[in-house]
Amino acid sequence: MILVGELINASRKPVAEALKTTDREAVAQLAQEQTKAGADFIDVNAGLSEEREAELLRWLVETVQSRVETPCSLDSPNPKAIEAALAVHRGTPPMINSISLEKERWDRLLPILQGTALKVVALCMSDEGMPETCDQRLTIAEGLIEGLAGAGIPLENIFLDPLVQPVSTNTSYGRAFLEAVEGIMTRWPGVHTICGMSNVSFGLPERKRINEVFLVMALCRGLDAAILNPLDRRTMAGLVTAEMLAGRDDFCARYLEAYRAGLLSEP
Amino acid sequence: MILVGELINASRKPVAEALKTTDREAVAQLAQEQTKAGADFIDVNAGLSEEREAELLRWLVETVQSRVETPCSLDSPNPKAIEAALAVHRGTPPMINSISLEKERWDRLLPILQGTALKVVALCMSDEGMPETCDQRLTIAEGLIEGLAGAGIPLENIFLDPLVQPVSTNTSYGRAFLEAVEGIMTRWPGVHTICGMSNVSFGLPERKRINEVFLVMALCRGLDAAILNPLDRRTMAGLVTAEMLAGRDDFCARYLEAYRAGLLSEP
Repeated sequence: MILVGELINASRKPVAEALKTTDREAVAQLAQEQTKAGADFIDVNAGLSEEREAELLRWLVETVQSRVETPCSLDSPNPKAIEAALAVHRGTPPMINSISLEKERWDRLLPILQGTALKVVALCMSDEGMPETCDQRLTIAEGLIEGLAGAGIPLENIFLDPLVQPVSTNTSYGRAFLEAVEGIMTRWPGVHTICGMSNVSFGLPERKRINEVFLVMALCRGLDAAILNPLDRRTMAGLVTAEMLAGRDDFCARYLEAYRAGLLSEP
Repeated sequence: MILVGELINASRKPVAEALKTTDREAVAQLAQEQTKAGADFIDVNAGLSEEREAELLRWLVETVQSRVETPCSLDSPNPKAIEAALAVHRGTPPMINSISLEKERWDRLLPILQGTALKVVALCMSDEGMPETCDQRLTIAEGLIEGLAGAGIPLENIFLDPLVQPVSTNTSYGRAFLEAVEGIMTRWPGVHTICGMSNVSFGLPERKRINEVFLVMALCRGLDAAILNPLDRRTMAGLVTAEMLAGRDDFCARYLEAYRAGLLSEP
């Protein structure tokens, strides 16, 4: 599983505070802890104010990379902010989070991706809005893959997010997402699927458990990347267990390593 | 999900004790608690001594049915014990646990099933031993279904158990089981799949978590029945959550009911 650590996000209070006070240590520490916990990318989101976003996103990238080698996931729909961040990003190419089939977003972000080794999260969203069914997701996915591949972006750099909607709104939304994951992974080998889980539990009690169980189910249907909090012990314990049971952990080595590191016992 | 409560089993110390001392109250209470927690069948196993098994299994059925209306799952390969138990079982037809494609077992149990409304657990096991791969499981499943259907047993009374082996022995065993569940449910609509989970975690630490995660994964691939401890809060919380996410809980009604009953909070 390819993990994107979600904690450096301006919508979280400690991060908003760190952005306001230019608290390098707070940000660097979040990058370090998430890397240690297994994050393959560190998501950086500076969406506090549109006018300062470019400056702040660049500062976040510099601050993260002052402490760790982990590439960033540049979490913005704003091409100016992404370009400012790309100008300072070093090492392994980062991930752009995210493009979609919405025309304005597509036209602004595609030129940044062309001819690069950037990874990109592609949301299954079009100008017609959020998809409801599995078929609608696969139709948008097809448009995204054809467009991105047509622009020379290799399939293995594309991370499709089928987008999950709350099951409290419609009981079929979880299943539609899971079927879309399986459909995408079967139909376009090489492409990745990615998702943040938390939307699925909106409006329901005990949301953390719902998100964890849904992650296991999505992994079981083929999801191979996730945007999550790698410091959450229960999420990570569920993940390492599910990967072992899905046959992706030779000799149960990572499971046993997590056990020896004390990560599997109840907090 | 069709749930078979596993607690009245002579291999468990309190039950062995109750069988020795003819403690009706202990057995009746286990039946009542499991029924209250959602068991659709109460498994009864009296495999202490072969010579007394018929007498003890009959006593277990009588004792369970003195307290609850829930049908039993008669857990024995011994036709004499099963016939003794059937002679006293009242109400909804019970489940026989279990037949297999092993010739001796098949020949002894099939006559009991023919012409009845009994449910039957059919283990994917033959005289060649435990299957290793998904394909081996599907081949045995085909033999079981052809044989049982040929003897007039309706598909909806057949509960195929693909049998899971420990992933600590071979990393592919979890995946082989999951693929067999999906293969059976796709190929023979109407047939049920059932399993006890605990074998998958044999030889590994933190077994309860492994069993729970595996149950969610199996449900996600189509498993529609399970032999488990319905009094285990974490198992049941995972189950109700996964069923909701799989789209099997209209309006999230059972999830919300479990929440209001306090079953979803951490113990």
